Parts: sequence; structure tokens; C-alpha cells
Amino acid sequence: MNAPANIPASLTTGKKLLPENEFIAGFHAIGEERYHHLHPFHLLMHEGKLTRGQLQAWALNRYYYQSHIPLKDAAILARSDDPSFRLAWRKRVIDHDGDGNNPGGIEKWLRLVEATGLPRQQALHGDGIVPATRFAVQAYVNFVSTHSLLEAVASSLTELFSHKLITLRVDRMRQHYPWLTGGLDYFNARLTQAPEDAEFALAWVVKHARTPEQQEKAYAALRTKCDILWAQLDALYFAYVQPGWPPPGAFKASEK
Amino acid sequence: MNAPANIPASLTTGKKLLPENEFIAGFHAIGEERYHHLHPFHLLMHEGKLTRGQLQAWALNRYYYQSHIPLKDAAILARSDDPSFRLAWRKRVIDHDGDGNNPGGIEKWLRLVEATGLPRQQALHGDGIVPATRFAVQAYVNFVSTHSLLEAVASSLTELFSHKLITLRVDRMRQHYPWLTGGLDYFNARLTQAPEDAEFALAWVVKHARTPEQQEKAYAALRTKCDILWAQLDALYFAYVQPGWPPPGAFKASEK
Repeated sequence: MNAPANIPASLTTGKKLLPENEFIAGFHAIGEERYHHLHPFHLLMHEGKLTRGQLQAWALNRYYYQSHIPLKDAAILARSDDPSFRLAWRKRVIDHDGDGNNPGGIEKWLRLVEATGLPRQQALHGDGIVPATRFAVQAYVNFVSTHSLLEAVASSLTELFSHKLITLRVDRMRQHYPWLTGGLDYFNARLTQAPEDAEFALAWVVKHARTPEQQEKAYAALRTKCDILWAQLDALYFAYVQPGWPPPGAFKASEK
Repeated sequence: MNAPANIPASLTTGKKLLPENEFIAGFHAIGEERYHHLHPFHLLMHEGKLTRGQLQAWALNRYYYQSHIPLKDAAILARSDDPSFRLAWRKRVIDHDGDGNNPGGIEKWLRLVEATGLPRQQALHGDGIVPATRFAVQAYVNFVSTHSLLEAVASSLTELFSHKLITLRVDRMRQHYPWLTGGLDYFNARLTQAPEDAEFALAWVVKHARTPEQQEKAYAALRTKCDILWAQLDALYFAYVQPGWPPPGAFKASEK
């Protein structure tokens, strides 16, 4: 069915099934526009312009996100009736929770928190995180629990973009914040984990998005995930950069 | 059991049951510290310093909150096995949804949106609201659905403080934004509805918080609710006042 000529093509693309290469290109276009590599908080970070207090606030709040990733992935595991999918996906839980001998991502993030000079207990208890962090992270867990499995998997596709961001971040952190260098193990591990995970998730989404509506829902899921990441940095910027007003009860960053 | 002398009294008050008057005073103390009458966005509003575009962004985003209030109240209704409680609480759903003849709070808020110059369809579709609004509002609905009925009811107690804020707001809006005057019906209705609702909820919470732990949970619920309101204004301030960066896809306010 052709759309009337006076409706822009962009409003009707949802009506036809995109070929695989175009469908994949669409995810990358969303990332170019909405992934948080563009966020002003990250730009300041990579220019070396954040104070130790601002980096503490970032590490502390982001710990809440990190600590909920295996809950998010367990919720996804719980929704699949395909053992081979679960076998592949459970790797993510192990990556973050560890295997009992080797530390996982959560433990490594705690070491990053400590490298900023905050006690790990503060992160473990969530003391002083801004409520907006909590709301955004809970929105992520709720999203994968209440939307289709296709949307839940598609929401993970921000990992398509994370390798480039992490590579830059580690480089700039070594350069600008050498005192943090001992806390960067988390990122080093993600440089191999994230691309593997993204490759699996992308292939799965491409295979399972069989209608134009499903393709559009997969895109919407990735946009929502980008919103979830972006909102966390907006809240950090507001509280700790400009205007610099932490909400009632939140961590107060020192100036230096 | 007495606390060791070196632990501040404030950390041990959770261990004894507060008498009714002290328990009630505690809610008011939380409001004085955390209710959004203190938020810089409201201060600008009441000083007449918001542009039409900023008021549009506020009305549009706040509509998402308003439209979810009856969902929140229905979730509370669904959790009570006491018909007399449900009879009292369902008034809130009627207040917001209307009775089929007289408009409820949601319709009145749509008229406020229109008075700012935005089409009601934009609010109905949530076009351009900032994701942080969505996350905070969803956190409220989830909170009352997943916590105890006592906490759910206690989270409504911000209404203890709304009469004073709305009285000031209506007065200042007539003074500073006379072009909005036709859209203020929502607030006029709330001036009688909110105190009735708050009186019922407070009496119910006082009656059902029978242990120190329950009293502390009721306080925590009110703090969480204050956080939910505050986070919405933080996000508006960030996007539309300072630094003035709407997140990707959000409504762009004009300067005047």
C-alpha cells in the first residue's frame, strides 16, 4: 500500500519491512543521534575538566546502574523459552556478577568508586545517589520486564556503540586523571565483552524482527535505552556541574 | 534498649514509637525540607520570570504526571480489602477522571495546556516530554504497586502541603501571566479536594502505622514522593532554564 504523496516518507517507513542492511544501519543512526557519547557530561570528562568530586558523583551514581544490569539480564533470561538463547545471555550475568573466583563488573566498578576516594559501602548502600538515577535505572529493569522479548533484547543494543566510547574514555582518563588509573579494570573487560554481546543481540534482533511493526518497536526500544542513559547524565550535570544543585539528601561534591 | 551514648539520637529514633502528634509533626518537617514549593523552577514561576515557552514545557510535562494520578490511585484501590477505604479513596479517581458530566482534573489540566498555547493532542500523546518525567511518574505508579498499602497511602501526603503552594501559585499566575487565567480551573478545584484527601490519608496512616518500623517506612514513602516531584522540576530546569539543554527528541521552548 503506497502512502499518499503528501505524507513525508519518514512517517511511512514503518509500513514496509526494511532489508537487513538498512535495518542495521537504522540502529547506528539512532546511536549517532542519541547515544550518551554526545552528552556534555562525557565531553567534560574526556577533556579532563571534571573535578574529583564530580567524578565521585558519577562513579557513585553509575554504580547503581551497574549493580542493576544483572537484574535486568536475569529478567530477560526469565522471559525466554529457548535454552540456547539463555545459554548465550547468561554470560552477561556472569560478566557482571563474576564466577565466584574472578571479580565481575560490579566488583570492578566498586574498585573504580574506591579509586575516586569514596568508600565502597557508600555505593553498596546507594547513599546520596540522586533520585533521578534510581528512576531511570528502575525504568530500564521495568522496560525489559514488561515489553516483548524482542524489545528487551533490542534495548541492549547501546553496546554496539560502547566500544568506541570506552576506548576513548580509558585513554582520556589515563591522560587527565592518572590517579584513577588503578580503577579502570571494569572498562578493560568491557572492551571485549560488549562487542561479543552486541553481536549476538543484533543478530537475534535481526532474525526476530519479522514485520515492519516489530522493526519499529526494536528501534523504539533502543531510543528508550538511549533516553535512560542520557537522563542519568542530565541529572548528574544538573546536580554537580551547572547549575550545580544536588537534590535534597544527595551527595555533595567537593570543589576539587 | 538504649542506644550507646556515642550514636546520635537521630539515628535511633526509629527504635521507639512516636506519639501521634510527634509522628504527624515529622511529616510536616519532611515537607518543609523536601516538598517542591522550594524548587528553583517554582521560585522563578512565582516571581513571574518564566517565559511562555518554559510554562508550555512545564504544563506539557506535568500533564504526564496528572494523567497518571488516577492510575496510581486505582493501583491503591486494587490493594485494599476494606470497602470503606475504597469508598473514600475512589473519590480521587473521580476527581481526576470526572463523572462523565463534569470535567475532572485531567481535562482541566488539558485546558491549562491549551491556555499556554499548545494543542491538547500534544499532551495527550506525550509528544516531546522529557524522558525524566516519564521515569519519575512511572516510579510513582510502581512505588504504590510494589510497596505496602501503608507506604502507598503515605506517599500521597504531599497533599498536606499543596494547598499553600496552589494558593500562592494561582495568585502569582494571575499577577504575572494574566494570559493563563482561563486555564486555572484545575487549581481552584484542588484547593478543596487536596485538603480533604490529605486529612483522610493522614488519619489512616496514623492509625495503621503501629510500630516504629512502620512509622519510619511512612516517612520514607513521603520522602520518595517528594523526590519524585523534585526530580521532575530538576529535569525541566535543566532542559529549559539552565543550562537549557532539552534531551534528544524533547520539546523545544521558544524564547518568549
